[in-house]
Amino acid sequence: MKIIDKINKALEDDRCFWSFEYFPPKTQQGVMNLYDRIERMCNLGPLFIDVTWRWGGKSSDLTLELCSNSQTVYGVEANMHMTCTNTNFGLIKTALEKAKDQGVQNILALRGDLPDDTVEFDPSVGEFKYAIDLVRYIRKTYGDYFCISVAGYPEGCVGPEDVERDIQYLKEKQEAGADIAVTQLFYDVDNFLAWVDKCRAAGITIPILPGIMPIQNYGGFKRMTDLCRISVPQEIWDRLEPIKDDDRAVKDYGIEVAVDMIKRLRAAGMRGFHFYTINLERSTRMVLEKLQLVPTVHEVRPLPWSPSLSEKRAGENVRPIFWRNHARSYIKRTELWDEFPNGRWGDARSPAYGEMVHNEQVRLTADQAAKKWGHPATVDDVKQLFVRYCENRLDSLPWSDTPLQPESQAIQDSLACINARGFLTINSQPSCNGAPSSDKVHGWGPSNGFVYKKAYLEFFASPENVKALLARLEGNPTVTYYAVTKGGELLTNCVEDSPNAVTWGVFPGKEILQPTIVERVSFLAWKDEAFEFWNAWAHAYARDSVSAGLLSDVSDSWYLMNIVENNFQKSSESIFELFDGLGQALSTE
Amino acid sequence: MKIIDKINKALEDDRCFWSFEYFPPKTQQGVMNLYDRIERMCNLGPLFIDVTWRWGGKSSDLTLELCSNSQTVYGVEANMHMTCTNTNFGLIKTALEKAKDQGVQNILALRGDLPDDTVEFDPSVGEFKYAIDLVRYIRKTYGDYFCISVAGYPEGCVGPEDVERDIQYLKEKQEAGADIAVTQLFYDVDNFLAWVDKCRAAGITIPILPGIMPIQNYGGFKRMTDLCRISVPQEIWDRLEPIKDDDRAVKDYGIEVAVDMIKRLRAAGMRGFHFYTINLERSTRMVLEKLQLVPTVHEVRPLPWSPSLSEKRAGENVRPIFWRNHARSYIKRTELWDEFPNGRWGDARSPAYGEMVHNEQVRLTADQAAKKWGHPATVDDVKQLFVRYCENRLDSLPWSDTPLQPESQAIQDSLACINARGFLTINSQPSCNGAPSSDKVHGWGPSNGFVYKKAYLEFFASPENVKALLARLEGNPTVTYYAVTKGGELLTNCVEDSPNAVTWGVFPGKEILQPTIVERVSFLAWKDEAFEFWNAWAHAYARDSVSAGLLSDVSDSWYLMNIVENNFQKSSESIFELFDGLGQALSTE
Repeated sequence: MKIIDKINKALEDDRCFWSFEYFPPKTQQGVMNLYDRIERMCNLGPLFIDVTWRWGGKSSDLTLELCSNSQTVYGVEANMHMTCTNTNFGLIKTALEKAKDQGVQNILALRGDLPDDTVEFDPSVGEFKYAIDLVRYIRKTYGDYFCISVAGYPEGCVGPEDVERDIQYLKEKQEAGADIAVTQLFYDVDNFLAWVDKCRAAGITIPILPGIMPIQNYGGFKRMTDLCRISVPQEIWDRLEPIKDDDRAVKDYGIEVAVDMIKRLRAAGMRGFHFYTINLERSTRMVLEKLQLVPTVHEVRPLPWSPSLSEKRAGENVRPIFWRNHARSYIKRTELWDEFPNGRWGDARSPAYGEMVHNEQVRLTADQAAKKWGHPATVDDVKQLFVRYCENRLDSLPWSDTPLQPESQAIQDSLACINARGFLTINSQPSCNGAPSSDKVHGWGPSNGFVYKKAYLEFFASPENVKALLARLEGNPTVTYYAVTKGGELLTNCVEDSPNAVTWGVFPGKEILQPTIVERVSFLAWKDEAFEFWNAWAHAYARDSVSAGLLSDVSDSWYLMNIVENNFQKSSESIFELFDGLGQALSTE
Repeated sequence: MKIIDKINKALEDDRCFWSFEYFPPKTQQGVMNLYDRIERMCNLGPLFIDVTWRWGGKSSDLTLELCSNSQTVYGVEANMHMTCTNTNFGLIKTALEKAKDQGVQNILALRGDLPDDTVEFDPSVGEFKYAIDLVRYIRKTYGDYFCISVAGYPEGCVGPEDVERDIQYLKEKQEAGADIAVTQLFYDVDNFLAWVDKCRAAGITIPILPGIMPIQNYGGFKRMTDLCRISVPQEIWDRLEPIKDDDRAVKDYGIEVAVDMIKRLRAAGMRGFHFYTINLERSTRMVLEKLQLVPTVHEVRPLPWSPSLSEKRAGENVRPIFWRNHARSYIKRTELWDEFPNGRWGDARSPAYGEMVHNEQVRLTADQAAKKWGHPATVDDVKQLFVRYCENRLDSLPWSDTPLQPESQAIQDSLACINARGFLTINSQPSCNGAPSSDKVHGWGPSNGFVYKKAYLEFFASPENVKALLARLEGNPTVTYYAVTKGGELLTNCVEDSPNAVTWGVFPGKEILQPTIVERVSFLAWKDEAFEFWNAWAHAYARDSVSAGLLSDVSDSWYLMNIVENNFQKSSESIFELFDGLGQALSTE
């Protein structure tokens, strides 16, 4: 979808909106972290996100991938930056084709920084000299397909002396087909508003989004404003001076500044605000919270997971629970499906899953693995890691790049307890018996609805532990399970092969929504991925090391098991009673 | 489905089963009552029902219709009797073809009674002389399509002197292709068991179902047993003698006799029991209850409505609520659909409804209407009738042949109250917030589940009353409504055209079942039927009578309206608070 349409709708409703700008990280781990951040920050309801651009195979590919995945996996519209200097026409053409192919429909057309500050700008290097050339090319070649945004410079592109000339340039970019102007960051609100007036007087009618960058630390702020010749009101320097060595105080003040700026901009009629996040979350969140702009659950969570913006998946509203922390993998493995489950999963007529995607998440160096997870030598060492993760004392495991889901915080003690006994959980949800759909933790969907969950646990366990648990489940009429080895030996008490809805919601005037299910075929497809994490982890250690051997052994002999307590009217804790006294407690506990 | 397969399955599981025999009533009203009775008695879990046969266009057509509808509308397998004397080959052929066409797959092949006791049996009249000829013909012509049952005579067909010969006949019928023997009724258990032994000794291996007829009254019992030469143990006569003038005492004793007989038959290894109900409900119900054979909710209510046995509708599990008391009409109007809603209603892509079926239910004579509903002259008179119906002081209304649904008994005072104020309810359900699926009143579906309902009211109301109610609903975020005039003027606050699930259930290991919905297209189709009842009622009076004029006026100007309180966590009464003080109370109250 074109963001100009979303902007026009918001302006029509006289509604404030905001966007977040990110840059592609340099390391694989950084990319993973950014994805998690983008996903979390979607809860702040950005109208769209931006991803910056640097030419060069890997970097520009990563920008495109971040944009495409944000749309497909997290359901947020992406505005992809593209520069046009220091490259050539062929590359630009290819990049635009790729963007179109992947459903990216918004481009921020820029001239681009020079690769090195010491190099003079040489317009002969690329086919295009200025951003306007890129705008013209896109419009000529793609007609209305792309929404094009361009940069605006309230304090001049190079410096204040060029402001008037730059307004003319912006006018020309509008005439060439630009839909939106996003401005360089600034701190002088009066100057910005005067500049907007000049733009309007010059005939610039497209929406102008002011660029806001909350101050993060003193040194960086000083360097950046000096370098970009950005004027900073003296008051800000005065307030920063006494706290400049206290990073937290600087950040808090930065939030205060941004809040104050946006208040004044709103008072002057501005409705949209573009945040330069520099890939950080807290300041942007705090600014929006203080302005009471953070959206309700209903606005940002139409489903418990983020619906894809991919056109093919438009009606999709049911997914298996297994990939909850691995949405990208699920989308990749199902991208060739002709239709997506809508309303219900259906009668186990699920189409085949595509090949497993290599788990790049755990392609870690030995150093990184050692630093995060040490050198586990015994099962107890592994249990310790899982326990620490449940207790928020470890921020990731191979299966989870992010801490426990907020909803699972409520059951973290019980989770830690069964992990200590050798039931290594990789996914869980507590039960929920009709919470309002506005509930901060459990809620999703339209207002005045009620949401439900069956308690769910998914874990690895040794054959002995599985056997002991199965004995306990014998004759239990409300708990259903699937357990499977890496080799595919399946144990289950589900006689029919029907999907089990484990999350559902009831809303005024609607059929029941049942967005997550547990289902056999999907579990068997997920199983391969889940076991692969053991191997990937093992590979981070020397081939003949104790750790590598241990992790491979676990992978080869343990079960992956999921259990559902179908009586969702029971408390979240009751599923854990099944484990009382099972397994072997950690010797150190 | 062939009942022999169901019987074999029951015998394999060593499970008791029972069947109910009905005869086609002579009047249209009698037929309607029988349908209601069959539907109610389905809750007693018969393995199948029988409908007796008499040649003659109307009577035999009615038998076929009762069988076919019982299967399609009430989801109970039917065993259609067919006699072969006093008719001719062409009629038999046609009748069998019709039965096959309508999905009837079970025939009880009989010789048939003679039309008049004084007429000697004349085998030359028809093409077939004996039941065995019919058995042979069916087998020869239809192969295995039909399950054929035949009569067995523990006390001889004509009298005890023929018992041995009749056993040979039964053996021959088995050899000709009979699958099951259903016996003539009897009261002498010892004799019956001895007869079964003889049958087995003679090589009869097919299942034998003993015929049980609970004694209903002394006179009838005496005449019947004399006429059919059925032996009655002296003890029964002795016990009947002192109570023979007390009908209730006789019935109660009849129940005791049947219970005692079945206990002895079970002890002797019999598992199936065929009840000659003579279209009565209470005795059969009491016998099964006393034997603790009445099935659980789970066994007889897979859905809140009876799923059809029609093959085409096998997967159907969603229906609009409007036809709840008019399942036959719904099935008729949707019989041409290629697929039936399964799992969910879908995106309002409902195929078109067929033509409205004439509402034979209210094809009443003036006498009948006058007797039931008097000669309403004012709206208050009509309101009085609806109030009396809600208070169980009137057993039917044109829209409802049966008393209020059991679930609505709990809200009958509130219903009476809004009817008195001119909101004339024709359908309703109280809310239900997660009752166990085993609940006697609300329950349905598999065990260990939970069932839910949104409070629902459907009523006729004058334009003024609708207007007043709508003003009250303004801005109410949880109540949705549709109101429509006979002419089709529609008022609604449902912006999206999506179906609203108003009954659903959550079960272990399954997706959510949502068997009843409220939906616009269906409501508009139902509307024509609902208004037609006013006209049909009006037509029962003289064309220029006050009553006819009144009822036509109401039909022409009032609205049919439905409202759903989507907050099912509220009490059942809360939907009635919307009506507080609305309308005009009955002057007599």
